This record gives sequence, C-alpha cells and structure tokens, in this order.
Amino acid sequence: MDSLDISGTTAPTGTLDALTERAATLDELNALAHTRDRFLIPPGTVYLDGNSLGALPAAVPAALDDAVRRQWGRGLISSWFDEGWWDAPPRIGDRIGALIGAAPGQVVAGDSTSVQLFNTLTAAARLRGGRRVLLTDPGHFPTDAYLTDSVAELLDLEVRRVPAPGVPAALAEYGDRVGVLSYPIVDYRTGELWDLPGLTRAAHDVGAVTVWDLCHGAGAIPIGLDESEVDFAVGCTYKYLSGGPGSPAYAYIAARHHGDVRHPLTGWHGHADPFAMQDSYTPAEGIARARVGCPPLLSLLALEAALTAFDGVELADVRATSLSLTGFFIECCDALLADRDVRVGTPREPEHRGSQVAVRHRDAVGLVPELALRSVLCDKREPDILRFGFNALYNTHADALTAIRVLRDLTE
Amino acid sequence: MDSLDISGTTAPTGTLDALTERAATLDELNALAHTRDRFLIPPGTVYLDGNSLGALPAAVPAALDDAVRRQWGRGLISSWFDEGWWDAPPRIGDRIGALIGAAPGQVVAGDSTSVQLFNTLTAAARLRGGRRVLLTDPGHFPTDAYLTDSVAELLDLEVRRVPAPGVPAALAEYGDRVGVLSYPIVDYRTGELWDLPGLTRAAHDVGAVTVWDLCHGAGAIPIGLDESEVDFAVGCTYKYLSGGPGSPAYAYIAARHHGDVRHPLTGWHGHADPFAMQDSYTPAEGIARARVGCPPLLSLLALEAALTAFDGVELADVRATSLSLTGFFIECCDALLADRDVRVGTPREPEHRGSQVAVRHRDAVGLVPELALRSVLCDKREPDILRFGFNALYNTHADALTAIRVLRDLTE
Repeated sequence: MDSLDISGTTAPTGTLDALTERAATLDELNALAHTRDRFLIPPGTVYLDGNSLGALPAAVPAALDDAVRRQWGRGLISSWFDEGWWDAPPRIGDRIGALIGAAPGQVVAGDSTSVQLFNTLTAAARLRGGRRVLLTDPGHFPTDAYLTDSVAELLDLEVRRVPAPGVPAALAEYGDRVGVLSYPIVDYRTGELWDLPGLTRAAHDVGAVTVWDLCHGAGAIPIGLDESEVDFAVGCTYKYLSGGPGSPAYAYIAARHHGDVRHPLTGWHGHADPFAMQDSYTPAEGIARARVGCPPLLSLLALEAALTAFDGVELADVRATSLSLTGFFIECCDALLADRDVRVGTPREPEHRGSQVAVRHRDAVGLVPELALRSVLCDKREPDILRFGFNALYNTHADALTAIRVLRDLTE
Repeated sequence: MDSLDISGTTAPTGTLDALTERAATLDELNALAHTRDRFLIPPGTVYLDGNSLGALPAAVPAALDDAVRRQWGRGLISSWFDEGWWDAPPRIGDRIGALIGAAPGQVVAGDSTSVQLFNTLTAAARLRGGRRVLLTDPGHFPTDAYLTDSVAELLDLEVRRVPAPGVPAALAEYGDRVGVLSYPIVDYRTGELWDLPGLTRAAHDVGAVTVWDLCHGAGAIPIGLDESEVDFAVGCTYKYLSGGPGSPAYAYIAARHHGDVRHPLTGWHGHADPFAMQDSYTPAEGIARARVGCPPLLSLLALEAALTAFDGVELADVRATSLSLTGFFIECCDALLADRDVRVGTPREPEHRGSQVAVRHRDAVGLVPELALRSVLCDKREPDILRFGFNALYNTHADALTAIRVLRDLTE
C-alpha cells in the first residue's frame, strides 16, 4: 500500500485530541508539505473542492500579467513566434504528459474536454471502422455520455453501457464487435478508481481501442498511459492540475496511432503546413494533427504557469500524500461521525480510491452552503453525495479533521 | 458614401507635405480620435496588423488581475455563480451581438472559430436535411474550407465552391438542392467585402440557410444580422474586437431557429438542466443550446474587458473612420508609390471594401520583416500580398502615411 510512513505515531484513539495530534504528525511527515506555499489559498479556508476547481497557484498572476502587458501589449503579433505562442499546445501538452505517463510528443493542450472528447471518440471509432459497438460507462460524466451519443449518431454506432467491473464479461460475449471502450479513470460521484491497465488490456485482447477520461485523476494519481499502452485519453486541467477556471483540456494519442487517426475537427492549426493556406486539409505529422483552431492563449499560459507547482514533485509522493489525506479523512469520519446518519461512499481500499471522498447524507445539498459559511468548501452531487476533494499539493491532514469536525457540528 | 466630412481640407496634391497636412486634418476631424487612449499601443509603433491580433485594450490588465487574484484566488469555486462565470458565454455573446446587429439572446461566446464553424455548419445542414449541396467560397479562409469538407464527409453532403459573385447564377441553376450557403463577410486576403444582405436573400429565395464567417468584419463594419435575416454566423474576437491572442469565438443563431437546431457538440453546458447530471442530452432553450463545454474563463473575461473599448461607440462612426483610413491609405499609395512595382489589391469602391488594404508586391514576404524593423507592423499572405489592417478605434491617418512612406523607402 502506498502511504506515508507513520511509524512512531500512535494508532488513532478516536478521540478529538488524538486525531488532532495525529493530523499534526502526519502533516509534519508529509513529503509535500512544502508545496502548499506554491498556492495562494485564502487564510482560514479549508478548500476541499480542488477536484472541481483547483486553488490558485502562486506563479499564475505574474505570468499572466507578463503575457498580457509584455507579450500581447508590446510584442503584439510577433509574440506568436517570438514568445512561443504557436508551440504552446504541444509544449504544454508535454508538461501535462509528464504527469500522466506520456512520453513527449503525444499530448496537445487546447479546447474543452467536451470538444476533445468529440474529436477523440470520432477519431478512435474511425480507427476501428468495421466495429459498430462503443462500450462506455453508464455512470460516466454527463458530457461524456452526451458526446458519445452524438458521435454514435454521426457514425452510426451502437452504444452499450456497461459498468467497468462488467466489461470483461461483455467483451467475452461480443468483444469482436466492440471498436472503442470509453471510460473514466475515476467515478466523478463516488471517487472510485477504475482499473485502467486491466481494462485497456482487455480491450486490446479483443482488438478494440480505449479512450480514457482522466479528468478526475490527472495530477492526483500516477497514470502510466504509455506503460499501459492506452490508445487515447482526454482530460481537463482545472481540477488537480489547478489550471484555472475552464483552463484548456488536452488530448493524448499514442504515437503508434499518429499516422492513422483522422479527426473530424480539421481546424487549420492541425494542418501539415498551416501557413501555406492550402485549399484542402492534410493532417500534420505527429500529435500536431490533434490541434484544432486558435487556442485561448491567456488561459493556456495561465495553465502553463500553474503546472510549475508540480516542478520537482514525484507523482508517487502525490499519491502517497493523497491516500494519507483521504485515508485520514475516512478515519476521522469513522471516529467522529459514527453516531450520525452519514456513510462513506468511496471505497476504503486505497487501490480503489481516487483523491476525493464521497460522504453520503440525506441533506447533502443543504449541508454544502452551511459548510461554506464555516469556511469548509466542498461540493455535492444530487441526491445525497458530499464530495471532498484532496489535492496533495496543498491540502493538509488538519484540513481533513476540520472538515469532519464542522460536519459533526452541523449534523448534531 | 460613408466617410468623414473633410470639407474645408484641400484635395491631395500628391506631395508629402500636403499628405502630411491632410493626415493631421483627418485625424483632427476623426470622431473616434478619443478611443485611441483605450488601447496600450507601444509608443512609436504603427500597428496595422489588428486584422490579425488587435492591440491590447487598456481595460484588460486590471480586469484580468481581478479575475485571477480575487475571483479565482479568493472566491474559488463560488465564483462560478457569485461572479457570473456561468453566465459569461451568453452575457459576452450579447455584448458581441450588439456589435454585429443581433438582438440579445442569439449569440454565445466560447471555443475557437474552427469549433464553432463545425458545430454551426453541422446544425445548419441538419436543418436542411433533405438538401445535399453545401455552397461555399473557393477563397474561404482555410479552416472554413477544411471544416466544410469534414462536415460534408460526416453528413454525406456535396460541397460546391462558387465565388460570391457567382452565387445567384448557381442558385438559379440548382438552388433547390442547396441546403447551406457558407461565406465570409470579407475576403481574408484581398479585404473585399461581400454582399451579406443580398446573398442571404438569394439563399432564402431558394429555401437555403446561411452561415456567415464574420472574422474579418466584426467590430469594423456594421453588420445587421437580424436586419438581413441571417440564419447562422460565427466569428473570432481577436481581430477588430481586440479580445487577445486566441480569445474565444462566438456563434449566432437567429431566434427563429432556436427550437430546431441540433448541434453535434452536445457538451453538458448546453444541456437544458446541466446540474441535474442527466443520462441523456436535452438541449437548453434558446441560444444556451449552442454552449458546449467549460469555457476558458480567463480568456473570456479578458475579452469582456476588451469589449468595453466599444462603449458608447457607434458602428457607423467606426465604419466612417475605417473607410477614411483605408481610403487615405490607398490615396497615399497612389501618390507615393506610383513609380514602384506595387498595386492595390483591394477594391477602391468603399462599398466593396472591408477594413484592410492588400498591397501587392513581388517581394511581399521579404518586406514584412523590413517594415517591422522600422516599426510598421503588418502581415502577408503568400505569394505577393501585404495586408494592412486598420482598426478605427486606434489607428490614425498618420499611421497610414507612415506605412506608405516606409514602404516607399524600402522599395526604392
């Protein structure tokens, strides 16, 4: 099990004093304690909604001011090349790639997750043109569900919705008709972590390709895209990557597919020779063919600055701290909320857990604003889920305990 | 003819002194002389590339700093509603709408022009499902050409490329098979202005719908989308609208089509009840159905601040100043470059001119960096076009004369 070495600390006694002491000890032992200073978090705020919008990295304001005043204001049009704007999508893509186990040249940043999903799902389905079934998660995030249906309509595919644990059985039954598997790495409601390597192998065994949605995992969990031989992946950057509100998404395409993929979004930035202004589309070599139109540079450059919060950070440490935080949070829940009508809705086994914990309570919807009034920020998914997201780069064990203490007061 | 009232000034004599004096007079008479202070233009720079990337509006840096430090940094997740992030796409869409002749509730901002084109072209073609021909401009901007072909492949349409002046004849011949007309308002190379009202009427006469690309006209030319009963339009915001590098694009859908259009990019932000997280897609009422995924808020809020440069400005004044600038530029060209191997490639009739002037010279490509070394910024389109874009909000007649003087020196 990945977790912090807590030898020397005493086992939890369940009492508040003991938990307070234990939180302090775990925070002292946290290998990533120093990265909290890389974020500008309002004093006194317990921010446990970084799985929805990451906190502001300290590097962003100055970088963006430079992008605006100097690069745009003074460099004007020349900044497209002199300041590297043109190369930003693949350059920032590579930086994201390093966090999701992708060697350089396979990730491009830009557009929204929805747009990347449409573009990637269509390209994936075309790659397995003879196979009509697209297998996806009935609990997938809504935008994934909607775009899957849209792609299916355009390409005349059949969508089958099978929960991740049922995929091997489904593939055994009709795997020869499955072209694409489209799954999330982490369930957005429960925080359950799915078996990316295993499902990818299972897909390949029947000749299908995989499209993974990494939104709820990237930056929190080591994801070995290359190692697991994933075919395609997309993800947002405003959750654990803390790129800012609506910061551009990304698409990963394994290098072995670069020569064959055909995207529907044939924007001129993905052309082999974009400035030749040719009449017809010839896709660029490599990952550049996944580029679409002109990317939102200010948001993109803010994202690039935000990613420096990961400089020198090992994903294994991120995962260890994350599991320590979520594990301690569950421990506090058990110890302090045992007599409340509350239950943990996220797997207790670390290997099945992302970096968020779902707490189920019949009044989850009403509790979110009450928690916020007490400076504990989390969010909800109807009807009964409170979501507490932990970002190992800035959250503390003290945050976890405070959240549970406030929840205990509110559910009295 | 729309133009500045220059009664009282002398006719151009063709001499440099006379042109210098005339530039000063025209700048004094310019109704928009005061808006230049709304932009931060580097001193000494003659910026004539605003048709590619508009100059930095003075309102942007502070607005963006507020968006980053206060709204994101301190407001965190709550800013999605407390600061109006969620409503930014239709709110900013309405602000753009006011500049292109669209009543509120018909424009949404977000994504790139390429993405908006794909989404809109597909929706338009579906609206005329029984008609297989898509008519478009052989000289359309490349991304329009590429995405038209992509949409045609997905929907099994036939693309016919007919120059704008030939459209009436084409429609007379096979108009009953044409579902969609897709044209630019201004030719991106020559700056020629096409007849949007006339072509829209011609399309409607045969039962087709129109998709206009406003990139090279919005913010420079009064465009009466509602008045001309245009069906669909898209455009970028980083040219004459000065929204910043890669600032989000927009889509216009006439209200009468809102109930019928079906987009392929069915992202969750366009859902009728996005936070209900439903399993299947039901498009929102009104223009909200043209929303896709999570928009790049920082770029979007920079755009919103940029658009305040148009506060209190009448588009008729913009057009008058623009025509005065381009007209004077052509006049200088005639007077000072008559003995050079140079010719104006943009129509001389104001009613056929956008807000840029193409100057053709065999060494256009080599001249751009030479001009830049002398602080005159423009751009090129191979093989032989120099493009000089005039933004009525910040360019001066002195800019026009300086550019031609430098060009005269360089072509000696």
